[in-house]
Parts: sequence; C-alpha cells; structure tokens
Amino acid sequence: MKKFLLIPDSFKGTASSGKICGIMERAIRSHFPEAEIISIPVADGGEGSVDAFLSAIGGEKRLVRVEGPYFEDMEAFYGVCDNGGTAVIEMAAAAGLPLVGDRRDPTETTTYGVGRLMKHAISQGAKKMIMGLGGSATNDGGCGAAAAMGVRFFDREGNGFIPVGGTLKDIARIDMSGLSLGGAEVVTMCDIDNPLYGESGAAHVFAPQKGADAKTVEALDGGLRHLARIVERDMGLDSAALPGAGAAGGMGYGMAVFFGSKLQMGIETVLDTVRFDELLENANLVISGEGRMDTQSLRGKVVIGVARRASAANVPLVAIVGDIGDGIEQAYDMGVSAVFSTNRVAVDFKYAKQRAESDLFLTADNLMRFIKRMECKWAK
Amino acid sequence: MKKFLLIPDSFKGTASSGKICGIMERAIRSHFPEAEIISIPVADGGEGSVDAFLSAIGGEKRLVRVEGPYFEDMEAFYGVCDNGGTAVIEMAAAAGLPLVGDRRDPTETTTYGVGRLMKHAISQGAKKMIMGLGGSATNDGGCGAAAAMGVRFFDREGNGFIPVGGTLKDIARIDMSGLSLGGAEVVTMCDIDNPLYGESGAAHVFAPQKGADAKTVEALDGGLRHLARIVERDMGLDSAALPGAGAAGGMGYGMAVFFGSKLQMGIETVLDTVRFDELLENANLVISGEGRMDTQSLRGKVVIGVARRASAANVPLVAIVGDIGDGIEQAYDMGVSAVFSTNRVAVDFKYAKQRAESDLFLTADNLMRFIKRMECKWAK
Repeated sequence: MKKFLLIPDSFKGTASSGKICGIMERAIRSHFPEAEIISIPVADGGEGSVDAFLSAIGGEKRLVRVEGPYFEDMEAFYGVCDNGGTAVIEMAAAAGLPLVGDRRDPTETTTYGVGRLMKHAISQGAKKMIMGLGGSATNDGGCGAAAAMGVRFFDREGNGFIPVGGTLKDIARIDMSGLSLGGAEVVTMCDIDNPLYGESGAAHVFAPQKGADAKTVEALDGGLRHLARIVERDMGLDSAALPGAGAAGGMGYGMAVFFGSKLQMGIETVLDTVRFDELLENANLVISGEGRMDTQSLRGKVVIGVARRASAANVPLVAIVGDIGDGIEQAYDMGVSAVFSTNRVAVDFKYAKQRAESDLFLTADNLMRFIKRMECKWAK
Repeated sequence: MKKFLLIPDSFKGTASSGKICGIMERAIRSHFPEAEIISIPVADGGEGSVDAFLSAIGGEKRLVRVEGPYFEDMEAFYGVCDNGGTAVIEMAAAAGLPLVGDRRDPTETTTYGVGRLMKHAISQGAKKMIMGLGGSATNDGGCGAAAAMGVRFFDREGNGFIPVGGTLKDIARIDMSGLSLGGAEVVTMCDIDNPLYGESGAAHVFAPQKGADAKTVEALDGGLRHLARIVERDMGLDSAALPGAGAAGGMGYGMAVFFGSKLQMGIETVLDTVRFDELLENANLVISGEGRMDTQSLRGKVVIGVARRASAANVPLVAIVGDIGDGIEQAYDMGVSAVFSTNRVAVDFKYAKQRAESDLFLTADNLMRFIKRMECKWAK
C-alpha cells in the first residue's frame, strides 16, 4: 500500500491546483490502483480559495446575505471545516473586483461585507478564521471589515462613519471597545510583501487596476498614511511597513491592526490547516509542482514550502513543473528530491500551453512507470 | 554497486552518441561515484562508426594506403577489435563524399579502396567484417570493392575492367572464381530500405546529392539495372529488391551478392558486436535515447532495438529523448520502462538546441537524484 500526497500550486494561466491534482491522481491510479492518494489543492487566498480548502480537507460552504462592495445587499459565502471550528473566508466573495463590473472606484468601495462574514462565522462558533486576501475592489485599509466587527470610526465632528478609500482622511478617532472576536484566532493568507503606503504601497501598486487614475492614487495613498497615523496614535501600533500590509487595498494592514492577525504565506496556512505534518506520516512520496520553477520559487513559494516540511519528515518530494528555469540547484538542498518538466516537445509556450494537461499526464505517468519498473522497495 | 548501460542514438543535429554518453555518465557519476558505467555509443554505419565501435568495445585503428574515390593514392583506416578477429570498416573512409570535395561525379567514383581495406583486414586474420554504409560518393553497386577482392568483370570484347557508375552498363560477364574471403563473415550495417534501382533506388534517391543531374541519374539507374541482370544471369542471385540494396550507391547490393553479407540495422549490429546480452547480466538500468521519439522510432530504431533486448533480460530501460512525439504508448509494451524529455522550458527548437547538452544533463541528473532518493533496493 503506497501513500501519495499531491500538493501542487496552480500552473498559472494553464490549470488550477485542483485540476493538476486530478491529472496526477489519474496517472498514479493507473499504475497503483490501490494507493492512498491525498490531494491538497493549494489556495493562495484569492478567488477559489474556499473551494480549495474544502476540497482538501472537507467541510461545507455557508451562504450569507451581506453588504457588497457598494454596501448593496448580496449573497456571499464562506467555508467551514473542523466541524465549524474553522472558517475560511476569501475577501473576494464580498469585496471582489468581479462584483463591481465596470463600476470600479476604490474611493467608494468597502470591505464591510467581509467583516459581516467574519461576524457570522464567530456567531456560529468559529474559533479560527482564515482570511484569504486577493482580487479586491477596495482600498479601505480594512476599515469596513473592522466597522462590521464593532470597531467605531469618528470624524472631527465626532460623528461615527464607515470609512471607505476616499474618506480615510476624515478619520479623527478610532474606538476599539466594541470589537469582539469571541476568542477566535485570525490568520491572513498573504503572498505579497508590499507595505501599506508609499511607492510600493497598496494605492500606487494596485489601485490603478481597480480604476484609480494618477490623482486618485495620490489621494488614496494619503488616506492610508492618515489611517496609519491615527492607528499609531490611538492604538500604539506601527504596522504600516509590515510585509503584506499593502495587500488587497490595505486589508493586510487592517487584519493585523484591528484583529491581531498574523500575515503569512498561503502555503504555510494550507500546510498548517490540513495538518500536513501528520499527513506526511507513512507517506511514500509527495508530488508538488508549479507553472515555472525558477530562482523566484526558492523564496518560499509553494514547492519550496512543501519541500521543507517533506524533507524534515524524510519523505521524498518530486516537483513536476512546466518550465525549469536556470539556477534552481538550491532547490535540491531545500528538500526537492528531483524536478521534472512537463515539456515534451521543443515548442513555444503558446503551443505548449494548449497541450499542457496531456503533457502533465504523460510526465506523471512516466514517473509512475519508472517507479513501478524500478521495483523500489516502498512500491512493493 | 550499480551497473548502468548507456546506449543512446545520436541526437540528430545536436550531439553525437558519444557526447550523449559522456553527459549521462557525468550525471550518474555525481550521484553514484562507485557505479559501473558502460557507455556504448551507437554507430549507424556512416562517418564515425569505427570510432564509435572502438570506443564501445576497445580495439585499435589501422591506417592503410589504398585507392580513394578516384583511384588516387590515399591513407584510409579501419578498426579492429576482438584481438584482430573483427574488423570494422566504414566505407566513407575510402569512398566518402567529403573525400572528393567539389569534384562530385558518381559516374567516375569507385569503392575499390573499400575492397582493399577488406582485403587488408582478411590478410591480418579478421574472421568477421562489419561494413558501415553511408556517406558515399559512389554509385558503382559495390563492383569496385568486389574487384579489389578478386571478382573479375569483363566487357563485350572480353577485356577485364573495374566498373564505375558510368561503366556498369558495359559489364558482359562476371567471374567470381578469384574471390576469397578467407572464411570471414561479412555483416553490413544498413538503416535504409531502398531497393537497388527504380524510383526509390540508389540513383534516383541518392545520386543527386553526389553530383548527378537528371540525365545522369537515368544513366546510373540503367547501369544498376544492367548489373542486376548480369548478376542474376551469371550468379543466379535476384537481390535487387532486397531492402537496403540501394544504400550507398548500390553498395548494399554489392555486399550481398558478392560477399554474401546480410544487411541489418546498425543497432542490431552494435548489440551483437558488443555482446549486449552478456552486458545486460546484473545491469540495474539501461539508458537509451534519441533526438525525437515518435511513431517512426517504434520501427526498430535504436531505442526500441535496445529496449527489446533489455526487456527480454528483465532490465529496466529509460529513454531520455529530445522531443516525445504523440502516439508513443506502444513503446512501453516494447520494453521502454519510461521516457523523459530533455525539454525544460517551452521554447522553439532553435533555442532548445543551443542548450541541449546542459538540459540533457539536468534531466539525467534529476533522474539519478530521484533514483537515489527513492532508495530503490537495487540502488543500495
């Protein structure tokens, strides 16, 4: 009886992590029909993250009516697993760019609905919340979500309001006394390391794709700076430079300062949530992969994140990837036993892409043939 | 202690079989420094075949002064192995196209020098001769070689002469009585299956690249037809349609009718000569390969030829190839345990070609890493 763990990243622009798992599973199954195969599609926090988690560890999706990006009534969702103990929320479900269609305006949009999803999960007993950032239409520094969870924002006249991107500058005081997380721990998945504001901050880097022109970007950036000043003054937290603070229109920052969340790589969150170290027990082989393995990959992305754990448990890990870039030799020291490319013919990516799925199957299939034929003792 | 047999074809247009062996050997050595590695560069009969054989099984090269393509004095060579018992001759050494420079004229050129090499080998005690065809400048149906070995050709006036492409038509009688092979067996390596004459015969298919214009092609084809008629009449041999008779300007035909040689695939000749079946004993892995594995490959080319033997001896065989074409699944049934492509990035062949050697190393290197990490019992 063999035990395989499949935990690939998506092949960007080609196939989702779930699809990759399915193809690998089919290849394994045709040579080791009795094998135990555990597929763990990797979520990166963006759209599809809830589905990936539910597919990896089971659970259910809850539909909830909340406020959308423009405070409109809408149906959003989140996932629960561990018998309701853990909630997985992707902010895109209530504040995502696809929800606003052509009406992109990060000065007006809110993450309020995201906070409502959190509140709902807590009311249902969640003791841990995993928040996936990514694909947001907002630039509110997470103030909307905070407001929905009980944080109160006041302007200079002392009037309470829910700040959006364009009105962050009006915040004069923040009152955290109404916030209650019900003892729940919050973990935020965040794979980028931009700070809250400045040249590489949320507004400058990401607001243009949300509909902001140059002048608006400056205004949004100013709003985030103002928020950071008030938070530092009223709450004593200096978190604007935190790597990932600038993710999702400053939502990374908001998660940290309002909810005490840590920001961590998506893969680490997935590995923790699925209790990967336990799954590694008695595993014969881990197969990971990504669209392209290169020197970037060595900086803690999916394959290397998984390889570190596999290596610590002394389980071999093979990476099946699209392209293998130059200079990846360090990966071997980081726990990657071997890496194989899915490329089977020397053609440009525009052609390779069209045949990527069958080529992935061929590569995985031949790896299994090889394992079986070599009569490795673990394959008995 | 592991035993690896390396027996790849050349990667056409990229690297020779010997070069491929060297790269694979380096990859293996870096993970299994104590391994027994036997490299068998595959000769196809053309230029470099003697070197390939000598590199595979040891032996020496003999330099001999013989007649060149235009009966000029020149230094040619052949190889001997098995303590002089086996001679390996590549006809290109005394009748090759590179020897004639710009003076390409298949009506005038001769294989006489090739016969002289054979005669020399026999005089030195060779009991087996392996003749490699390919790269010839001639179209003499092997009559030159036959003449050098003692076969006599007469014209209508009863005058003896040495026929060349343009004078085959003048042969009126053949006298085999002077021929002596000294009991030596002759095997001819021949990977093409063209007949002696006709549309797909030696003259029509190959003479143009040897300098013949359309009219000359017709004349040469007529000469070969005439030769076949005389041979059938005087010797009772009807071999013009023999697959490979048309190889090397009809040299395939000449080898068969004058010397009783069988024509066989180069790979079979190599496998027999190196006593591959004996080498397979105790081997842990055979690695073969070629520039492109496709449905053509399944027709008995190098990889499949090797795979059949490996399979019969129950030794795993991995093919490391450039491109993997579609529809190669039959190869698995023919003894190929698994096939891996050297392509590591999705780029056109013109780019892939430039990095082929390092990419081959990467593929072989990762295969060895995988074998080692999987702790296959045979790798202990």
